Amino acid sequence: MQLIKRRGTLVVVSAPSGAGKTTLCHEVRTLVPDLYYSVSYTTREPRPGETNGTDFFFVTEGVFTAMRSRDEFAEWAQVHGHLYGTPAKAIESALSRGLDVLLDIDTHGARQLRQRYPEAVSVFIMAPSMAELEARLRERNSDAPVDIARRLSRAREEIAAWRQYDYLIINRDVKDAVDQLATIIQAERCRTSRLTLRFPDMEVPA
Amino acid sequence: MQLIKRRGTLVVVSAPSGAGKTTLCHEVRTLVPDLYYSVSYTTREPRPGETNGTDFFFVTEGVFTAMRSRDEFAEWAQVHGHLYGTPAKAIESALSRGLDVLLDIDTHGARQLRQRYPEAVSVFIMAPSMAELEARLRERNSDAPVDIARRLSRAREEIAAWRQYDYLIINRDVKDAVDQLATIIQAERCRTSRLTLRFPDMEVPA
Repeated sequence: MQLIKRRGTLVVVSAPSGAGKTTLCHEVRTLVPDLYYSVSYTTREPRPGETNGTDFFFVTEGVFTAMRSRDEFAEWAQVHGHLYGTPAKAIESALSRGLDVLLDIDTHGARQLRQRYPEAVSVFIMAPSMAELEARLRERNSDAPVDIARRLSRAREEIAAWRQYDYLIINRDVKDAVDQLATIIQAERCRTSRLTLRFPDMEVPA
Repeated sequence: MQLIKRRGTLVVVSAPSGAGKTTLCHEVRTLVPDLYYSVSYTTREPRPGETNGTDFFFVTEGVFTAMRSRDEFAEWAQVHGHLYGTPAKAIESALSRGLDVLLDIDTHGARQLRQRYPEAVSVFIMAPSMAELEARLRERNSDAPVDIARRLSRAREEIAAWRQYDYLIINRDVKDAVDQLATIIQAERCRTSRLTLRFPDMEVPA
């Protein structure tokens, strides 16, 4: 029997608003065991139903900028006037324990993460069309019309970055899209670049 | 609705004799639809149960060397004194039609294929241990003892190349290993590098 050790995969997921990213990242945890879901810090207000420490760590701008000055974020960004950041230590610790880490992040944050962690695997989620994306944004009651317009304009910018990602998922059907995301994470578990291997009964390079 | 076009993935599978590669490559076709299974040419004699045109194209050395001189092989190799070759035109045509191509090939052939097709995805299959590999080779009645010794020695050489592959599958259980191979092929279908994309209702770089 050989001994096998695996470093976790850093999975970076981006999508324009309305493409269904939050749902996919939540649902995929039911299909893929041992997935570490990083919780971001943000200065925005919680939306109805959001819980501190589960959806986000909701902090003041003072707390956020102090953390940022201590280089505690793997990436950070300002989106729609609010600050968002990913705690570096938590994800690095999970990866070294062999856990896969799922990060739900915008395209600017994804760019920072790829520079800091070149071994990261990135996935872009897209709606089937701009018309579909707009329809999904309008269904979301919590957004005011001015927010919808701003999100749509930003969506175009984000979609233009799809080629910088390793994988693309078109979210036509939530179940199919969740399956595809799970498949990508599970395939990456077989990547030789993250494996260390020893055969006690023969000489094989590790 | 956006238009999406996909170039097929060239999937190169290698393994030491006895790791179960042939079974896996056969079984994976029941899980992954639209998989093009390339049939190799060989100068070795058919084993009992093998069919010409399905398992291999069984040809004379004269036919093989004539094809080779016309550069009709994507890779070729001499293994255990016999010639094996993969027809280039058939796989290139399948890839451009968007079909994934599965190639069951030794480590030397895999090296040639990676050079000719740098976008190829390679998978190494390993038995759980050398003891297990030897046991599996002995169970195979068609091999004479001298062949078993030769295959074991060659197995050590091939295993040493595992790091040159993109993915590793340990074949402890056939069903699990087939699932992993199917997962890898299906994840690769979402690779942005093989996709061309057009949104008729917005400007997005292809």
